[in-house]
Amino acid sequence: MQQSYIFAVMKYVAEINVMPHKNLLDPQGKAVSGSMAAIGLPQVSNVRVGKHISLEIEALNENEAFQKADEACKKLLANQVMEYYEISIHSI
Amino acid sequence: MQQSYIFAVMKYVAEINVMPHKNLLDPQGKAVSGSMAAIGLPQVSNVRVGKHISLEIEALNENEAFQKADEACKKLLANQVMEYYEISIHSI
Repeated sequence: MQQSYIFAVMKYVAEINVMPHKNLLDPQGKAVSGSMAAIGLPQVSNVRVGKHISLEIEALNENEAFQKADEACKKLLANQVMEYYEISIHSI
Repeated sequence: MQQSYIFAVMKYVAEINVMPHKNLLDPQGKAVSGSMAAIGLPQVSNVRVGKHISLEIEALNENEAFQKADEACKKLLANQVMEYYEISIHSI
């Protein structure tokens, strides 16, 4: 007897934050921090600036989508010497 | 009778995403999308790249902190002609 399987490929969205490591200087953040007082917002401090990346992934399940997003971060999106990343996955 | 008030200033963290408008071209995102197949991830598409900014705000309450973050976005962090922003506030 022949069996056939149907694998439903789902679409997921990964929201990724790539930020400079907390113990590294962040010149862009420092510049923004310095400007805050000048625009009337002295209550703002400790600004850190990184990247936000959203992407769509085709995968069989959420776990596989996370693996793909993690691979994309490691290989391309983040420089792990200077940056760390956070991934959140949701289906669409 | 004299009354005195003590206002407790709280510290909040604002996590801000500044992204290119969905109907605008995002050359950096397009470049990343194009590279995904080359690094063995053809399942990834529709990459959009923006900024993630975290900052600390001193304020009396969460609502005031949100107002300050919103002001910072409008005045400095986002170019509203080309970008939109999302703010999430939590206390520390």
